Amino acid sequence: MQLAQYIDHSYLRPDCTEQVIDRLINESMTYGFKAICIPPMYLQYAREHAEERSFLLCTVAGFPIGYDHVEAKLASLQRSAALGADEVDVVINLSAIKTGHWSITKSELTALRDNALQCSVTLKCIIEAQLLTESEIMHICEISNELKLSYVKTSTGFFGDPVREETIKLLRRHLEPGIRIKASGGINDYNEAMKMIRAGADRLGCSKSVSIVKGTMQSFE
Amino acid sequence: MQLAQYIDHSYLRPDCTEQVIDRLINESMTYGFKAICIPPMYLQYAREHAEERSFLLCTVAGFPIGYDHVEAKLASLQRSAALGADEVDVVINLSAIKTGHWSITKSELTALRDNALQCSVTLKCIIEAQLLTESEIMHICEISNELKLSYVKTSTGFFGDPVREETIKLLRRHLEPGIRIKASGGINDYNEAMKMIRAGADRLGCSKSVSIVKGTMQSFE
Repeated sequence: MQLAQYIDHSYLRPDCTEQVIDRLINESMTYGFKAICIPPMYLQYAREHAEERSFLLCTVAGFPIGYDHVEAKLASLQRSAALGADEVDVVINLSAIKTGHWSITKSELTALRDNALQCSVTLKCIIEAQLLTESEIMHICEISNELKLSYVKTSTGFFGDPVREETIKLLRRHLEPGIRIKASGGINDYNEAMKMIRAGADRLGCSKSVSIVKGTMQSFE
Repeated sequence: MQLAQYIDHSYLRPDCTEQVIDRLINESMTYGFKAICIPPMYLQYAREHAEERSFLLCTVAGFPIGYDHVEAKLASLQRSAALGADEVDVVINLSAIKTGHWSITKSELTALRDNALQCSVTLKCIIEAQLLTESEIMHICEISNELKLSYVKTSTGFFGDPVREETIKLLRRHLEPGIRIKASGGINDYNEAMKMIRAGADRLGCSKSVSIVKGTMQSFE
């Protein structure tokens, strides 16, 4: 097992520059990260500056708050696909869930799933788990199973507490085995990263990816 | 002068529910706020639950990080207009500015302005001033003047320090008189609100609007 192959090397702060993208590309070439996860506006730059790349291009939509119209999320996803994104992490409509409008959640996820399929991008649905109750998370798992989603991602990293091991275990228990899990939000060191993987995470979203894999080199086998 | 008529009574956190919208509507009827500023997904609900309203419906797009594709922002704006929004506050592409791609900023703002005009909504461009240098703010003012934008709004309230009086004065000095200014981000009491108005703000984005106008009743004339 190569820890780096679990990591989406990410920078999603509003002040992201081309210099940051250059760094993510270089570090991903050096350490072998699975993907870089970057703002939509930098997809074209990243594609042009990493033609012979060994990593996937991942971006976000409806980020970091999922209450925008589904039309906006779909427009974002389609444009990102056209610009070469392999994966798009979309924030679900948390407000709809908090108001109990599960039909909105389901119809939105259906539209996103269908569009992602048409555009040949891998969809990851960000559920912002730390703001949800256990029963809300389980309801999302049911919908995800029914829609056969590709990926559930725990958090944006912008709101609330860091991702918890227990959340990953809960998701793993309630999601069908075919649905993968991306743990994200406050995974800052090697031990945290390993805890998430042992709990069932298939992918990690991290910005401190380099120091995480450097931790590996000393203690990981 | 009625302070409430300067205020966009706002709730834009990811956990916004219909109960919050009900509260914003009721408080706006009671205190006479200029607008309610709410997540896109609640526009229809607000319109249906405040048919005889005395306030404007305002929402956001590309919020709170402006690095999404312009196609997504336009799709959001158009859908919000179709659902009855009077005003849309859109976050500009801060990443483009930080990388020095002013042509992206300008072409995006041109597309947004033209679309807002077609849809008959008032566009407010959120510049996230507290993350910009003075020279970047002045450059945005030049573009805003050239494009004859309706409104420049200081901040989303999600990143960095509260809005400063000096920023409003800087904007007022460099923007054409016809371009209005919305101050937002951390305006928590009556004194802060009055400082912004005296510095040149035409509108205030606040969530603590009720306690702000209650401050008025004691000390404002």
